[in-house]
Amino acid sequence: MPGSFTRTQTNTVDAAPARSFLEATAVESIGPGRFAAQVDPAWSARGKPNGGLLLSIAARAVMAVTGRPHPYAVSGSFVRAPDEGPVEIRVEVLKAGRQVAQVRASLWQRGAVVLDTLIVVGDTPDSTPAWREIPDPVPAPYAMCVPLARQPGRTGLVERVDIRYDPAAAPTRGNPVPRRTGMGDAHLRGWVEFSDGSAPDVLAALLMADVLPPSVHNLGLPGWAPTVQMSTYLRAVPAPGPLAVSVSGRLLSGRWFDEVADVYDVDGTLVAQTRQIALVAGRAPAHSRGTDSP
Amino acid sequence: MPGSFTRTQTNTVDAAPARSFLEATAVESIGPGRFAAQVDPAWSARGKPNGGLLLSIAARAVMAVTGRPHPYAVSGSFVRAPDEGPVEIRVEVLKAGRQVAQVRASLWQRGAVVLDTLIVVGDTPDSTPAWREIPDPVPAPYAMCVPLARQPGRTGLVERVDIRYDPAAAPTRGNPVPRRTGMGDAHLRGWVEFSDGSAPDVLAALLMADVLPPSVHNLGLPGWAPTVQMSTYLRAVPAPGPLAVSVSGRLLSGRWFDEVADVYDVDGTLVAQTRQIALVAGRAPAHSRGTDSP
Repeated sequence: MPGSFTRTQTNTVDAAPARSFLEATAVESIGPGRFAAQVDPAWSARGKPNGGLLLSIAARAVMAVTGRPHPYAVSGSFVRAPDEGPVEIRVEVLKAGRQVAQVRASLWQRGAVVLDTLIVVGDTPDSTPAWREIPDPVPAPYAMCVPLARQPGRTGLVERVDIRYDPAAAPTRGNPVPRRTGMGDAHLRGWVEFSDGSAPDVLAALLMADVLPPSVHNLGLPGWAPTVQMSTYLRAVPAPGPLAVSVSGRLLSGRWFDEVADVYDVDGTLVAQTRQIALVAGRAPAHSRGTDSP
Repeated sequence: MPGSFTRTQTNTVDAAPARSFLEATAVESIGPGRFAAQVDPAWSARGKPNGGLLLSIAARAVMAVTGRPHPYAVSGSFVRAPDEGPVEIRVEVLKAGRQVAQVRASLWQRGAVVLDTLIVVGDTPDSTPAWREIPDPVPAPYAMCVPLARQPGRTGLVERVDIRYDPAAAPTRGNPVPRRTGMGDAHLRGWVEFSDGSAPDVLAALLMADVLPPSVHNLGLPGWAPTVQMSTYLRAVPAPGPLAVSVSGRLLSGRWFDEVADVYDVDGTLVAQTRQIALVAGRAPAHSRGTDSP
């Protein structure tokens, strides 16, 4: 997976320059442990803010309060469907220890919690792994993956990221017949990068891990798949360049499915491990998923 | 993995009958959204309460407040090293929706949070999986696994559960040389059951997934490995009988490692999926892990 890459897409649709990921997740102090942020329509899909973006806003506030640069663990419960526009973040430091600080951060809109999080934040990690063993396939090399075709007139999140899919694990949308026998598989793999050319920062994987379509689409189950709870471990600071994402579902039971995502940087370092539980064809999406959801 | 089993061990060490898992995780209402519980030394290892036990106490309080029987997601941040003895649980319902309730529950001792949780609770799930694909090996059948030898004089958690290890993924404690080339692997697999013969309830997997030694022991790294954050998805109510647990580490980087555990019931149903991030050889253990930690 490591190796050179050449960007082949540029963001050409929007007339006005959109806010970068760093700008779209910026927080402004409005009091002790309280912050304001703007959930940007340019980072939403079909009017619903991306869940990874909301987690990133919460993590930024936690980093600001603690002064520690690296969120090791970000667990979030998506409580209510959020809207675009202003949001307030309330931060409560549960413990500030030597090694890490344990913090709760919640996002509020109109007097109600929309996202509650538990975040562990500490110093920048040593990014040299001592040992690694990953059972899921890694994405094919960048150059072997196929850029997602632009759909003229679409705006929002789909324009903020460029996605290239591994041909062996691409979405089967438009082709409801599973690619394998039985119900098919639930794998999606590919490369994701900011379309404005920004390098991924420590939080970028929170977004990138949540930006591909739900893996159950490949089981012939399209539609909204709202995340209910999502936990991400951020294991290293990514090198500049695109991130490789490998998404797999393990169990579909009733209306519930889980999803694991591993995120690698362009050097092949595993930078994030994430897991979520979500609902199939939920009534009210708690947040947006993917760039080609119906 | 499904099939018959014959219990071969009985709890014979303790003179007085110990509280069952259900009794040891019971909560008593002491006010609106407030509960008292007793963290039982009989369910601790070397004076430190088991993390899965603490999560179970939090989940019981959430079930009591909401009246909903099944915690689908239990995410916990282990904030401080807890002690045996009295604990207070504070429950805050973030949203009571049709499908699920989203709840925060925190455990307090002496005026400080020791464990903070986000819990999603709903109706009892349909336990018939529509689709499943698990990359990690499942434990060998019960009859092919080897009972953990009793160590006379030991008390506490080690006496509350009977463990049988898969010979292909047993702890290498006492043998610091990794079983394979390089740094070895980080797999542990086996069967766990309550030594008093109790059937596992919906929360039993929270304990069983956290009761084997840390998988990094098999990389030649013994010692305490305190969980920092742990998320469990409870996907089905287990059938009566022992639970099969498959534990795997994926990445060891700096002092941090992650661990995935899949838990199956005796019928082969995947009842729980859990993931945690922990520290190697941490100074102050936040809670106990395993039954043979030093």
